[in-house]
Amino acid sequence: MTEEQTDMAPEPETDEDDAYALDPRTIAAILYAVDVQDREKLVELMEPLHAADIADMLEQMNAFDRMRLIKLYDKEFDGEILTELEDGIREEVIGILNPEVLAEAVRELDSDDVVDLLEDLEDPQKEAILEVLEDSDRVAVQQSLTYPEYSAGRLMQREVVMAPEHWNVGEAIDYMRATEDLPDQFYHIILVDPRLRPVGKVALGKLMSSRREVLLSSITDESFHIIPVTRYEGDVAYAFNQYHLISAPVVDETERLVGVITIDDAMAVLDEEAEEDILRLAGVGEESSLSDTVLQTTRQRFPWLAVNLATAILASLVIAQFEGAIAQVTALAVLMPIVASMGGNAGTQSLTVAVRALATRDLTGSNAFRVIRREAMVGLVNGGAFAVIMGIVGILWFGSPDLGYVIAIAMVINLVSAALAGIGIPILLERFGIDPALASGTFVTTVTDVVGFFAFLGLASVVLL
Amino acid sequence: MTEEQTDMAPEPETDEDDAYALDPRTIAAILYAVDVQDREKLVELMEPLHAADIADMLEQMNAFDRMRLIKLYDKEFDGEILTELEDGIREEVIGILNPEVLAEAVRELDSDDVVDLLEDLEDPQKEAILEVLEDSDRVAVQQSLTYPEYSAGRLMQREVVMAPEHWNVGEAIDYMRATEDLPDQFYHIILVDPRLRPVGKVALGKLMSSRREVLLSSITDESFHIIPVTRYEGDVAYAFNQYHLISAPVVDETERLVGVITIDDAMAVLDEEAEEDILRLAGVGEESSLSDTVLQTTRQRFPWLAVNLATAILASLVIAQFEGAIAQVTALAVLMPIVASMGGNAGTQSLTVAVRALATRDLTGSNAFRVIRREAMVGLVNGGAFAVIMGIVGILWFGSPDLGYVIAIAMVINLVSAALAGIGIPILLERFGIDPALASGTFVTTVTDVVGFFAFLGLASVVLL
Repeated sequence: MTEEQTDMAPEPETDEDDAYALDPRTIAAILYAVDVQDREKLVELMEPLHAADIADMLEQMNAFDRMRLIKLYDKEFDGEILTELEDGIREEVIGILNPEVLAEAVRELDSDDVVDLLEDLEDPQKEAILEVLEDSDRVAVQQSLTYPEYSAGRLMQREVVMAPEHWNVGEAIDYMRATEDLPDQFYHIILVDPRLRPVGKVALGKLMSSRREVLLSSITDESFHIIPVTRYEGDVAYAFNQYHLISAPVVDETERLVGVITIDDAMAVLDEEAEEDILRLAGVGEESSLSDTVLQTTRQRFPWLAVNLATAILASLVIAQFEGAIAQVTALAVLMPIVASMGGNAGTQSLTVAVRALATRDLTGSNAFRVIRREAMVGLVNGGAFAVIMGIVGILWFGSPDLGYVIAIAMVINLVSAALAGIGIPILLERFGIDPALASGTFVTTVTDVVGFFAFLGLASVVLL
Repeated sequence: MTEEQTDMAPEPETDEDDAYALDPRTIAAILYAVDVQDREKLVELMEPLHAADIADMLEQMNAFDRMRLIKLYDKEFDGEILTELEDGIREEVIGILNPEVLAEAVRELDSDDVVDLLEDLEDPQKEAILEVLEDSDRVAVQQSLTYPEYSAGRLMQREVVMAPEHWNVGEAIDYMRATEDLPDQFYHIILVDPRLRPVGKVALGKLMSSRREVLLSSITDESFHIIPVTRYEGDVAYAFNQYHLISAPVVDETERLVGVITIDDAMAVLDEEAEEDILRLAGVGEESSLSDTVLQTTRQRFPWLAVNLATAILASLVIAQFEGAIAQVTALAVLMPIVASMGGNAGTQSLTVAVRALATRDLTGSNAFRVIRREAMVGLVNGGAFAVIMGIVGILWFGSPDLGYVIAIAMVINLVSAALAGIGIPILLERFGIDPALASGTFVTTVTDVVGFFAFLGLASVVLL
């Protein structure tokens, strides 16, 4: 893929369609080939496509087209496509594939990709796939599946290039020349002691540029991290991102080398974690996907809305205490959602900053107090600013200075509470081992609604009646 | 860092403090060393720490401790720490550092790190740093700065290991042995034609395991992507993630090789982009950081709250049309926030799914219609479910079946509008080239508030009065 650049524009290109997405004309041509059942044309059109793009295309078509395409494409179906598909669609595709084609597709894959494929499948499909593997692969896959889900053990590849710590460059190169089945992609040689414990790693580039008699132990990378096989994958991704690792050895409970994790796997996890945070913050099940059915989607979202209903009713109970005041001054009903809404928004701001800072470990015991103080101050300053604005609006709109004062004071109270709840609740949840992205939003909105309505209507009852 | 694992727990470890974060005791010891001005102890404590962890620690302390630590640490200050610091703190630290220490620290860095450091600095600091660079480095850095911000040109490293396309393995290895200053980290040799246009790449691992007489062109990687120097960095990160690239050549407008981008840089960009989306969705300036001052933070958040105020007032204007109805039936004031709140939440769910699907290019012209239809159906089903629940609540609480019907119908109307707005507005904004993460939230909440209040109060006026 090359491209003519005619000038150095001051802004970088952002035309995403042009850049990497699938060409809609190609998709149209493929669908046409499926319609007319032209297998030769279909294969010709799909041949240049990357498995990841084919997977995206399959995800984006409707189920009927997907089935017809897969049946027509048949033997050409590549195992890589399976690993790129999202869970729901993958199960569907495995069900459609001719068993022989499936067997062939799976046999092509590396053992860690097979593991990735199997973990999300139902038992009958899982059994069927394990059966078609060669014996050695099956053992490797089953071994990996004994590690806990979301652990380094599931993420690692078992093929490792290692060398005794006392070897020199020449010995390492000769060994690699003589080895038949090196992994497709590897970037470091891991040095091990006689008990197979990793003691360092040598970058291939460094190896290449060193003389044969140089000791491997004298050219190891400065930064070296060992990952226990049970380490949570999110922590693994954090370490890769924080320390700019390219690959890292994985050890079992006896500290013996059992595999290696490479940066591309860590990158995928990092991406998933950020995605999960976004979806959880919005109250969408983090497993949700665009190809879920109406029923699946409804089921994922219902519980969050139900929790929200409960908190909304709580807020309404507060309002109900002031029905008398509202009957006398209906302007209160008009203005009260403004206070609650501003509080909700300010709370969400603080909350999001807190949740992300906790996830990226920028918010710790050392700065928590300072950050809480800062948020409270921001709430106070913004609260003050909007108090003035809303005070003026209250006076101009309803001609009542008292109403202006009331809404101004309520605004300050609610924005400060919002800030404190927004930063404090995630910190508390984290302390108790609950994912703050998952639960904070509800608590924070409850606080801002209840405080907002109570402060505004309560003050109004005292001042105006 | 090794660790004893005594059993294969069914759940992976999630104790993050234990895993990779800085040990609070180390931080306390460091602060104590600064307090008593014990330079020797400070250097001893900080020696084992990774630059990224030192940067995190500096970000998390207060400004006074930070200054004292840097002054005491003095000559030991490593250039890597600067590249790891976030913008605001970095400027502050550069201002504190002794000019000679700063010069030394910057001279140690690779040219792409210097570029990264310079782009966010004010002119006087920028000039000062450019001055201390060696001539060749300065030229390289200034050249990189001519590429647009956020482009591949800013992201790439200029040091590339390349070979003529007709070389064999032996020639490549001999060339690398003979070259003095190979880059610290490289994973591929890029093959170029006589006009220096990249034509393929060979993984070092593959090179290692091939015989000397094998032609490089026969062992190139299957997947090969060329990136134009003006390509937007977000698109570069997408390509790395989508196609599992480890490194990719960058070409100028004449298609000549000018640099290479590696996966760790792409990973950093991907991380930033997800972070930006999260912060924008929450109405927090995407440049915000935990170490910003109260004033900076207030200034970032004020505009978002101001926009929210405007939309809240709009919703209040709708309520004001029904003051008469509220005066007669105050239960309307009690219940109306529930309808609006449910709509807001359902809208945010649809919106977040849409924004992320657009960012990851899972939502395209091929499936937009299907996804919109699905969201509308989900809104209808959830709306129906909550209509029943709220209808019953309305009847039980206020003893009025009519009020129950009204709130039930309003709920269905608002949840369907929320779904349509949540999915439709981001798609529209994207079409017009506006970042949906930035602007959608406001529009969607405006729709759900206005529709919610109007549907509920309007129906109530017709049915109840």
